[in-house]
Formats: sequence, C-alpha cells, structure tokens
Amino acid sequence: MANIFHLPTELSAEELFEPLVSGEAVLIERIISTGQTTPEGEWYDQERYEWVILLQGEAKLTYLDGSSISLQAGDYVLIPAHQKHRVEHTSAEPPCIWLAVHANLQPS
Amino acid sequence: MANIFHLPTELSAEELFEPLVSGEAVLIERIISTGQTTPEGEWYDQERYEWVILLQGEAKLTYLDGSSISLQAGDYVLIPAHQKHRVEHTSAEPPCIWLAVHANLQPS
Repeated sequence: MANIFHLPTELSAEELFEPLVSGEAVLIERIISTGQTTPEGEWYDQERYEWVILLQGEAKLTYLDGSSISLQAGDYVLIPAHQKHRVEHTSAEPPCIWLAVHANLQPS
Repeated sequence: MANIFHLPTELSAEELFEPLVSGEAVLIERIISTGQTTPEGEWYDQERYEWVILLQGEAKLTYLDGSSISLQAGDYVLIPAHQKHRVEHTSAEPPCIWLAVHANLQPS
C-alpha cells in the first residue's frame, strides 16, 4: 500500500513521472508538477488515450484549437489519442499531483 | 470535465458503481460507499487486476488469508486477479470515494 499524496521530501526542478503499475496496453502513473509547463510551441501528441485527474493543486490545459480548461483538485478529463494539448499552468504551492491512466479508452 | 468529489445530492442506500470510461480491456470506475460492506461470508473474486485508490473516507479490506489493510484518503492498493477480498468497513461520513482501474495489470 502507498499513498498518492505522500511526496518526496525534496522535489527536483523537473516534473516527476512515476509509473505506479502497468500491464497489457495500460499504464497508470503519478505526475508531480511544481510550476512546469509544456515548452512554448510544443504539444503533447500521444498514441493512446489519457484519462487524467488532478488530485492536488491547480492547472490549466490548452488544446490546439485554442480552447483551454482550468483544473481544480478532483477534476478529470479524457484526452483522446493524438489530441494535441499543452500544460499551460501548474501550481507549485501546493504541487500538482496528477493521476494518469494511459490506455486505449473510448468515451463511455 | 467532471469532478470526482462531486457527489449526487441524494445518495441511495446502495453502493454506487459508476463507469467513468472504458476501453480495450480497461474499465475506470468511481465507487461511492456509505457504510456498506461485503456481505458476511462473501468474497470478491475478480477476473482482472484491480488498482484502487481511496480518495475520500476511511475503509478496510480483508484478504482470504485473514490479513487486512486500513485505507485513508490517498491510499492505493493493487489487488491481483482472483485474490479474494472483502470490504470490511467503509465510512459513511464522509462517504468513501474510490477510483478503481480494472485491467490486466502486473506489478511494475
């Protein structure tokens, strides 16, 4: 057993991507952000769907069409494969704790 | 976008299992418990691995070998396929909010 809210005592300057468990075409990971954003002009373009929930902190995602969503603790979104997106903002205090599930998901 | 902490205004007397998204051999669901437990003498015996995190409330799981684990908000466990387990306790105030990922997972 482990706790998703327990953070390393020293956070590095970089975003922390931690695989928690993985399996057949599935990856569950924790991401800790402390102010980092996607570099200007760059986009995530992922092979698989990502279901992601922000469990602590505040963040903002932007899509290629210019729309954006602000996330508070507990908010979750489903990002389709190849839907280009950027992380526009992440709070440092408190750090953002994300839980992401990467898999071939379809909206239910 | 939706928020995992937003509960229905009226909770029924039954545990609430809500699929959030599913895909190829993956199901992500929210479970809301308000004091329910697995009926005496019954066990969950699941085909797939379950990675489950308790996001609100307090709960206790028991395994067939008699061992048990108490969960607080943020605690997560990986329950292997066919590992028989029972939910021994769930808090009603606050309600337990679980997030479960059912898939063919292996410990990383």
